[in-house]
Amino acid sequence: MNNTTDTPINVIGLGRMGQALAGAFLKAGHPTTVWNRTASKADQLVAAGAQLAPTVGDALTAGSLTIICVTDYPAMYELLGAGDVALDGTTLVNLTSGDSAQARDAARWAEERGARYLDGAIMAIPQVIGTDQAVILHSGPQQDFEAHRSTLDALGTVTHLGADHGLASLYDVAGLAMMWSVLNAWLQGTALLRTAGVDAATYAPFAQQIAAGVAEWLPGYAEQIDSGSFPAEVSALETDAAAMAHLIEESEAAGVNTELPKLIKAMADRSIAAGHGGEQYPVLIEEFGRSRES
Amino acid sequence: MNNTTDTPINVIGLGRMGQALAGAFLKAGHPTTVWNRTASKADQLVAAGAQLAPTVGDALTAGSLTIICVTDYPAMYELLGAGDVALDGTTLVNLTSGDSAQARDAARWAEERGARYLDGAIMAIPQVIGTDQAVILHSGPQQDFEAHRSTLDALGTVTHLGADHGLASLYDVAGLAMMWSVLNAWLQGTALLRTAGVDAATYAPFAQQIAAGVAEWLPGYAEQIDSGSFPAEVSALETDAAAMAHLIEESEAAGVNTELPKLIKAMADRSIAAGHGGEQYPVLIEEFGRSRES
Ligand SMILES: NC(=O)c1ccc[n+]([C@@H]2O[C@H](COP(=O)([O-])OP(=O)(O)OC[C@H]3O[C@@H](n4cnc5c(N)ncnc54)[C@H](OP(=O)(O)O)[C@@H]3O)[C@@H](O)[C@H]2O)c1
Ligand SMILES: NC(=O)c1ccc[n+]([C@@H]2O[C@H](COP(=O)([O-])OP(=O)(O)OC[C@H]3O[C@@H](n4cnc5c(N)ncnc54)[C@H](OP(=O)(O)O)[C@@H]3O)[C@@H](O)[C@H]2O)c1
Repeated sequence: MNNTTDTPINVIGLGRMGQALAGAFLKAGHPTTVWNRTASKADQLVAAGAQLAPTVGDALTAGSLTIICVTDYPAMYELLGAGDVALDGTTLVNLTSGDSAQARDAARWAEERGARYLDGAIMAIPQVIGTDQAVILHSGPQQDFEAHRSTLDALGTVTHLGADHGLASLYDVAGLAMMWSVLNAWLQGTALLRTAGVDAATYAPFAQQIAAGVAEWLPGYAEQIDSGSFPAEVSALETDAAAMAHLIEESEAAGVNTELPKLIKAMADRSIAAGHGGEQYPVLIEEFGRSRES
Repeated sequence: MNNTTDTPINVIGLGRMGQALAGAFLKAGHPTTVWNRTASKADQLVAAGAQLAPTVGDALTAGSLTIICVTDYPAMYELLGAGDVALDGTTLVNLTSGDSAQARDAARWAEERGARYLDGAIMAIPQVIGTDQAVILHSGPQQDFEAHRSTLDALGTVTHLGADHGLASLYDVAGLAMMWSVLNAWLQGTALLRTAGVDAATYAPFAQQIAAGVAEWLPGYAEQIDSGSFPAEVSALETDAAAMAHLIEESEAAGVNTELPKLIKAMADRSIAAGHGGEQYPVLIEEFGRSRES
């Protein structure tokens, strides 16, 4: 097990995020070798004890665990696909943002070159890397994650999602959809209440409480989805739809945007039209799971 | 102060919700007078100690605090507008669902007839009335709420939002918008992850954590809105928009619904087009506050 803080680690790509990652490894005591196209971005890290590798190939051979975090996947292929770069013997953890198909392709590509490969998604800003607040998702072979978990722990709250290399990207966008949706619902409510003279700070704690409260229902509602049965234990979709109409009316009367309220109602109406009016909200999974031309 | 549990209370309307309300008052020890168009719905309550008033007018004079909870506002006017019904001397707490304009109109109407009037919105199902889980919002004159607060406390977690009678309805629909938005974002993520073989129960705790985490940002973000200044302390809208494109792409590639992802991006794109790409997410309040033809 590489579970001591003297496990050597290589970090390729020293943009804002790469510098934060390398800094967290250094701080945790890992001998850290770094490389960046623009070498000057390594200056602070070198001053803090990092080794600057002269080439990418050198960086890869300094330790057996390599983190890469560059702009996008094409940049990663450009760097690691060069003729003089040997990937065999390395476990490559790719924290570059991309989609699940890119992650799966990159895994095949790296494995063909003899590397072990984990994909990752960083749900955090550089400023919090190295703290519990930094959520970093990994996917790929469980054994490769376990082998390096204690090293990766230096970056924040690290999680392994499963063997499918695409999972980190999928959880990432799903989590972002939740983030934007909470923010948008809060903005909708804030816009509505401002028309009645309520300021954003007054409304925010209420919105916070509702969001956190509803979040607690999700594991229970998930059981309905997994069992495919949606008894209206709390309320029926038809009842919800009536209240959705109120939301649209209030928004119209207040002169605020109605797109979000109308989308909420449209999804429910379609499910009701498909015969699910007497069932409970999670039955909408059938609408969300279905692609539509739009 | 009417702050002892022997304060008499009148409950008009004994549907599923009215029965729960009257039951909670009885349980808390209040002498409770009830009335319902269909008298048989009072049977259980009478067996539990309630007094059944022969007419609505009689119900109103039994105690000086009257709760009404019927289907809708027209039903309330039909009941309380009858010639032989005297409203003067009563504080009327209307827990019938409606919109903010209906609440403001009803306040004027009741006050013209000599009643004190509070509007309310019940964010709970009948089963939890009488417990902390039952959130009941009130709006109208603060002094009337304070005078009856200890009595109303028997119903659950009661809150006073402000003097504007429309506030209870507005907070109600705003809270519901948050509820549906958290659920929809969770369904979007669940639909996406199911295509990668992840079941709903596996994904739910992750979605729960994100929703609760983002909810904590709201009070801070509210300060940006109230100050009208949106420095990109965490990330710029332009950066968010790039990740929104990933969400759409992943949803398309997985063959799931893209309407919610596209609405999220459309709102952000409009704000960027209006020159806010370098600012932080809450700047979208300008889009949410603006009505659009659609
Ligand atoms: N910053 C955040 O808040 C954040 C949060 C989550 C995820 N991420 C993800 O982390 C990754 C890096 O982001 P960042 O903020 O560090 O970006 P950045 O500051 O713009 O840095 C980009 C890095 O990629 C390198 N690079 C780009 N194209 C290259 C090429 N063709 N050949 C060699 N090197 C190349 C750059 O090298 P030079 O220095 O030589 O230009 C630099 O090291 C991105 O995928 C981003 O989505 C960032
Ligand atoms: N149930 C919930 O989960 C829930 C949650 C939050 C808010 N609410 C709100 O609470 C209110 C009552 O809901 P509920 O669930 O109790 O509905 P309900 O079970 O359908 O009961 C409706 C009540 O209104 C009375 N009513 C309707 N029209 C009337 C008229 N023209 N004249 C006299 N009485 C009339 C009914 O009398 P009869 O018995 O004679 O028909 C009955 O007492 C609604 O505004 C609802 O939106 C309900």
